[in-house]
Amino acid sequence: MPRYTAPVKDALFIINEVLDLQSHVEDLPSYAEATPDLIAAILEESGKFVSNELAPLNLSGDEEGCTLLEDGTVKTPKGFKEAYQAYSEAGWPSLTQDPEFGGQGMPHAVGMIIEEFLVSANHGFAMYPGLSSGAMAAINIDGSQEQKEQYLPKMVEGSWTGTMNLTEPHCGTDLGMLRTKAEPNADGSYNITGTKIFISSGDHDMSENIIHLVLARMPDSPAGTKGISLFIVPKFHINDDGSIGERNGVSVGSLEEKMGIHANSTCVMNYDQATGYLIGEKNKGLNSMFIMMNAARIGVGIQGLALSEVSYQNALDYAKDRLQMRSLTGPKNPEGPADPIIVHPDVRRMLMNSKSFNEASRCLAVWCGHLVEMSHNSTNEKRREWADDIVGLLTPIIKGVMTDEGFDNCVNNQQVFGGHGYVKEWGMEQFVRDARIAQIYEGTNGIQALDLVGRKLGANGGRSIQRYFKSVQTLIAENKENDALKDFTVPLEAGIKDLQQATMWLMQNGMANPDNAGAGSVAYMHLFGRVILGHMWLWMASVVQPKIEASEGDTAFYKTKIKTGRYFMRRRMVETKSLLAELEAGCEDVMALHEDEF
Amino acid sequence: MPRYTAPVKDALFIINEVLDLQSHVEDLPSYAEATPDLIAAILEESGKFVSNELAPLNLSGDEEGCTLLEDGTVKTPKGFKEAYQAYSEAGWPSLTQDPEFGGQGMPHAVGMIIEEFLVSANHGFAMYPGLSSGAMAAINIDGSQEQKEQYLPKMVEGSWTGTMNLTEPHCGTDLGMLRTKAEPNADGSYNITGTKIFISSGDHDMSENIIHLVLARMPDSPAGTKGISLFIVPKFHINDDGSIGERNGVSVGSLEEKMGIHANSTCVMNYDQATGYLIGEKNKGLNSMFIMMNAARIGVGIQGLALSEVSYQNALDYAKDRLQMRSLTGPKNPEGPADPIIVHPDVRRMLMNSKSFNEASRCLAVWCGHLVEMSHNSTNEKRREWADDIVGLLTPIIKGVMTDEGFDNCVNNQQVFGGHGYVKEWGMEQFVRDARIAQIYEGTNGIQALDLVGRKLGANGGRSIQRYFKSVQTLIAENKENDALKDFTVPLEAGIKDLQQATMWLMQNGMANPDNAGAGSVAYMHLFGRVILGHMWLWMASVVQPKIEASEGDTAFYKTKIKTGRYFMRRRMVETKSLLAELEAGCEDVMALHEDEF
Repeated sequence: MPRYTAPVKDALFIINEVLDLQSHVEDLPSYAEATPDLIAAILEESGKFVSNELAPLNLSGDEEGCTLLEDGTVKTPKGFKEAYQAYSEAGWPSLTQDPEFGGQGMPHAVGMIIEEFLVSANHGFAMYPGLSSGAMAAINIDGSQEQKEQYLPKMVEGSWTGTMNLTEPHCGTDLGMLRTKAEPNADGSYNITGTKIFISSGDHDMSENIIHLVLARMPDSPAGTKGISLFIVPKFHINDDGSIGERNGVSVGSLEEKMGIHANSTCVMNYDQATGYLIGEKNKGLNSMFIMMNAARIGVGIQGLALSEVSYQNALDYAKDRLQMRSLTGPKNPEGPADPIIVHPDVRRMLMNSKSFNEASRCLAVWCGHLVEMSHNSTNEKRREWADDIVGLLTPIIKGVMTDEGFDNCVNNQQVFGGHGYVKEWGMEQFVRDARIAQIYEGTNGIQALDLVGRKLGANGGRSIQRYFKSVQTLIAENKENDALKDFTVPLEAGIKDLQQATMWLMQNGMANPDNAGAGSVAYMHLFGRVILGHMWLWMASVVQPKIEASEGDTAFYKTKIKTGRYFMRRRMVETKSLLAELEAGCEDVMALHEDEF
Repeated sequence: MPRYTAPVKDALFIINEVLDLQSHVEDLPSYAEATPDLIAAILEESGKFVSNELAPLNLSGDEEGCTLLEDGTVKTPKGFKEAYQAYSEAGWPSLTQDPEFGGQGMPHAVGMIIEEFLVSANHGFAMYPGLSSGAMAAINIDGSQEQKEQYLPKMVEGSWTGTMNLTEPHCGTDLGMLRTKAEPNADGSYNITGTKIFISSGDHDMSENIIHLVLARMPDSPAGTKGISLFIVPKFHINDDGSIGERNGVSVGSLEEKMGIHANSTCVMNYDQATGYLIGEKNKGLNSMFIMMNAARIGVGIQGLALSEVSYQNALDYAKDRLQMRSLTGPKNPEGPADPIIVHPDVRRMLMNSKSFNEASRCLAVWCGHLVEMSHNSTNEKRREWADDIVGLLTPIIKGVMTDEGFDNCVNNQQVFGGHGYVKEWGMEQFVRDARIAQIYEGTNGIQALDLVGRKLGANGGRSIQRYFKSVQTLIAENKENDALKDFTVPLEAGIKDLQQATMWLMQNGMANPDNAGAGSVAYMHLFGRVILGHMWLWMASVVQPKIEASEGDTAFYKTKIKTGRYFMRRRMVETKSLLAELEAGCEDVMALHEDEF
């Protein structure tokens, strides 16, 4: 059975030494309470909880899956209900929530790490509280004070959970075609009727009530995306005293049979005159959904990292343990019948790909969490705007790149096991199957790339991308003269040049023919991803290098950072050239075939 | 349920127009009977058979899987036994086998295509006759005339099947550690005792007998790879009159639970004093196994193509059918609620990646089949040697590159379906799970890359690679002056230069430190793969371009070839640059971390 040890030390390094949250207290007074000691205690506790309570249920949860009972409710795999109870009782659902409704108000940067730990230990489980967070975000953003007071305290304490209901059989990406109806009642509520598919955590036995957030169209609303509203539809009606009442008109049509995440109940949900309550403005439901979805997209990106990390840990154990063949440079374990396979360069290559990705994308996730905090809560308006720009730009890249690379890493880590990786008992094939969904849901990675080139690049006259370039160039300039960092600054500078050239190309050629933007969007997103991860590595290297020189702190740890980062800079950054070339090839060959010629 | 239509037209184009088998009759008299009409009839019949009989069992076979019955035998999924009976009765097992033992003696080039069709329709099924072919190859190569006469006729007619038994729990790649014992009996037979794992098609209910080929060590044999011999161990003893006798001492320990290929029985096989018969020379078993394995590796490479093809066909259907969003350049289906997703450049990119790979690798597979034939049967000794050189060089690349890219294409084709690709009913996720094994078995792709850089490059003083370069350069030279082909010749020439530089780098730096070769081996293999596929495209383009200019034959088909090839040359060949840069980064960063620093 696979094991998982939460990378607490690495997370604390990023939070305390790279980002140094405490240095931002002036702008972000909420950080005052999040002292390094408190954060360390939280991360250590979380690490213990997920390793002891959730990781042991991962393989069994996959095997057993969810069951639709005869009474129409969903039973989660053995142990899940009890684990969720322990999770709620320990207060985890409230960690980053608003203190007004019972939350602990911890920084998002910390929340990102907790999300990583949860998914590494048990992706299927993590999606129950994960979707609930999404629903809480929507209520926070768009709910009336009354709605907030009605739903949030119970959700924050974890006794109620939530879901997001967007997709219908004929529309996923294209929500403008949505058909679910919302007919007004005299009392101000609505009758919701329609079918939703692919609803993660759609029903289960973990919480007392499930608060569904449902997109639907009112009879007098226009067709297309401008006629969609968002509704709260609880599984059980809520009595005036706040207690649970009768069942509402929402039921599970069936459970989807999927490639992975078997422990999560992916439901077809039937709404049949279910009572719903409008949340936010009429016909503005898609806006609300997008705000919520952007938060969810960052969370999905972290899933890519999380599965890359846990599969890496197990591949590493196996590589140290499995004896097979001798090193090309002579026996390293002469007493044994063969050398551990970690001596073989190609096995190391696969491990280093994961390690160098995991550490940089963890830094990216935490930075993004900090920027989200800054965009919401900074006392400095300019910084709020700046952070909001960067978060908007980073979101599709975090989702698209971290899940694509996370999946590739899971495949490579499975490969380290050879044939043993293909059989179920080692758990490596489950990580691959589970990681695959993250490239698809919350908008496929192709849609992320289009969001990046079609919306984010041009927003506010290109302000976000210019601001991003400036921040990288500043970092490079600060470190350029330091010879000890030239293995970082030189490749990053080359990468930034490629990214700038690619951006310029898109501006010129995407305008002339939008298919040029579409044909190169994924290449552009991955080129950008390489640069951002390289940027994180220079940032981390610039923090540790002076400490190494001063023999300050855990220099062994810092030296490993430099070596790992150097691997990324010298072996993984080289792809920016070919991604640029693919982009610049334009759309001609992509669009050349007539539909009938395929 | 997914559909499959065998690409008969494309295969005939390669066989008749690109390779033109009939033009080789002088050297290869066996080709005389394989007329274009006969080959067309065979391929059409095969295409019908696999689409009607095997493809409909693919999804159900995956769902049901194999069952180990209480009597210790394996039951294959519903319909498999009957399908295998129909397969044998139609004579498919004998297609490329030696007429001396009942075979039809058809060219290997045709056999490669039939293998592709089988795997596209039903990978799990195809592995039963596939392993049997491997076993026949070993008996053909190493068996005594008596052994050939005893086993081959029944195997050729399909009433007996075969397996290959190499792996043990503690050794896969490193067969030198093999422990299975072979103790001599007075009558010249051996008692075989040991445990083998991951035995594909290890037991089943399709054939009257199963002929296991088993690697084992005799008591007086040396340790390591030089003490391994190969044995024939039939499931049932064979009576003197050739009829089936009692059970031999071989039994199924358990069925492996796997990520995919559920319809194939992957067994733990227990040999307990089973009677075995030495085949080939004592202590030379590994040589025999490698000859057989090389043939099997080409077959596994074709599996990558086969699953890429079938997943592409279904993604294409879906892309034409699914309506979602409008084209970036204005509505293409204005009457409908949205455009078919094939209008979106990124969907096309994914489809074109598959299409341009499938057609080039099909050409490569057929060429390789032709070279195998030439290396065995050419009347010209020089050509036999030349062909043997090229086959040896191509084998690890076909296995490693075609399965890696085949898997990536299955992932992309699944991606075209969005969320629908992740649920089981569409069958797209099965292709991904099935394709994954091909990167692992018959030597992981990392081992293929090591075989390429460690053995194949240096063999006979680099003769193979020099011969390969010469053949590509000749083709480029012949077409360089043709402006209509410059989109092919220019990128291929750049690719060859990168490959030559990479080869030179390996020669110099791999010698100085073998870890340099190990650290760059996979990058080198993929760089080589790009060049070979580009080479196939120039070859095909050089065949069709004059026909287009002369308005001769199916010019619409030929023009599509040019457009598809141009996509490959201009968008996929660009990666050779970054693969070269990755290689030239050397092993320093790969090996930098001490084991404890990971």
